[in-house]
Amino acid sequence: EIIDAIAAHFAEAAHKPQADKPQAHTPLSGKRALVTSGPTHEPIDPVRYIANRSSGKQGHAIAEALARLGAAVTLVSGPTRLPDPPGCAVVAIETAREMLAACEAALPVDIAVCAAAVADWRVAGTSDRKLKKDGGGPPSLSLTENPDILATLSQAGPRRPALVIGFAAETGDVVAYATAKRARKGCDWIVANDVSLGTTTFGGADNTVHVIRADGAEAWPTMGKDAVGARLAEAIAAHFQTPTP
Amino acid sequence: EIIDAIAAHFAEAAHKPQADKPQAHTPLSGKRALVTSGPTHEPIDPVRYIANRSSGKQGHAIAEALARLGAAVTLVSGPTRLPDPPGCAVVAIETAREMLAACEAALPVDIAVCAAAVADWRVAGTSDRKLKKDGGGPPSLSLTENPDILATLSQAGPRRPALVIGFAAETGDVVAYATAKRARKGCDWIVANDVSLGTTTFGGADNTVHVIRADGAEAWPTMGKDAVGARLAEAIAAHFQTPTP
Repeated sequence: EIIDAIAAHFAEAAHKPQADKPQAHTPLSGKRALVTSGPTHEPIDPVRYIANRSSGKQGHAIAEALARLGAAVTLVSGPTRLPDPPGCAVVAIETAREMLAACEAALPVDIAVCAAAVADWRVAGTSDRKLKKDGGGPPSLSLTENPDILATLSQAGPRRPALVIGFAAETGDVVAYATAKRARKGCDWIVANDVSLGTTTFGGADNTVHVIRADGAEAWPTMGKDAVGARLAEAIAAHFQTPTP
Repeated sequence: EIIDAIAAHFAEAAHKPQADKPQAHTPLSGKRALVTSGPTHEPIDPVRYIANRSSGKQGHAIAEALARLGAAVTLVSGPTRLPDPPGCAVVAIETAREMLAACEAALPVDIAVCAAAVADWRVAGTSDRKLKKDGGGPPSLSLTENPDILATLSQAGPRRPALVIGFAAETGDVVAYATAKRARKGCDWIVANDVSLGTTTFGGADNTVHVIRADGAEAWPTMGKDAVGARLAEAIAAHFQTPTP
């Protein structure tokens, strides 16, 4: 009902311009958006887990920017230190499987932005008890593949969002890897960034991205993650006015 | 020089009681203490790492309580969301090996309290590049043993702290495991708690501990982590007045 309330609020705002207020810029009014953000945590045993350095800043900024443009936003987020962005319905999850379930529960949507740094793998045979040093040498963690949330949402079908956007965190050959990833996943756009050691994309305030669409790659200048979120939200709104490839 | 300044401050306070102020209770004045706190993060590749659910609340509370009793405290902490406790010199580290180096740099001390949840293992052959799904199936993480900080500090020798206290996070048979751990590590006391699934010791505000010394195990009632810290600091101060086994 939160989403309905937000949608109703913006629909009303769009239909009743008031002379004494600046008209809100809400080109995404009436659209539903799903955004994923943050890391996932994959348990090893009751106390240990595999994590990654995603802060959630970029995903949260995108969710907030989409809401500001009038979209009804569901934000599915792994553990972060960030406050919930205003105007978004937030679903907190830990693992990749929980994130997939929360995304599927949010469908149907018009827009899906998969900004979360989802763990590719989880630990096979998670232990119910804390693994102990028993003199037998260190254990070996055998991993198993997690569900692919971006590919799942990109699958053709009646529930496929009209626009599916993935993220790629690469440590070299950013555009080439991201272009291949776009084709492999079946999504519409890929926002690619370089997370090499020495750059501070993970956890930092700024981001340098390439946006890969069917018609090629566009390099955006380095800017704050809030600014990347705002520009991406505007590009999404423009796409729904005049669809780009 | 921070530590010297704190020590000097408390030494002065102890020597110059003022009629118009309540006398500070600083039984640990002149003592140096080392406290470890929080989790360690062990890298897998530039973006992934193995972590644990320690919040650092218990270790930070102990450091603060020791400082309040007049000790000059160095707190060596893994990544937490906590503010630095007042009156402590804080050294931030990520990995177990960094924690050991920071502890050794803090010696000599009179008191060492190893409250951190140090990773028993790190990943052997950490990758400089992000591990990728290449169709060859999930990788297997082979682990290698981390240095044992508690056992290292407990080793007899001229630099051994007079009182070394370890923590044990167990998921069953708490007292039996912790008693065995005390003997194995060579430390003086073990503070043992149960971190089973279903209890909320990791991350929670309360703690239920057993304190194991040479003369047996003492069960403390469930109380806030701040209260556990205060009671442990008082027990440490009492030990330096009248050494317990």
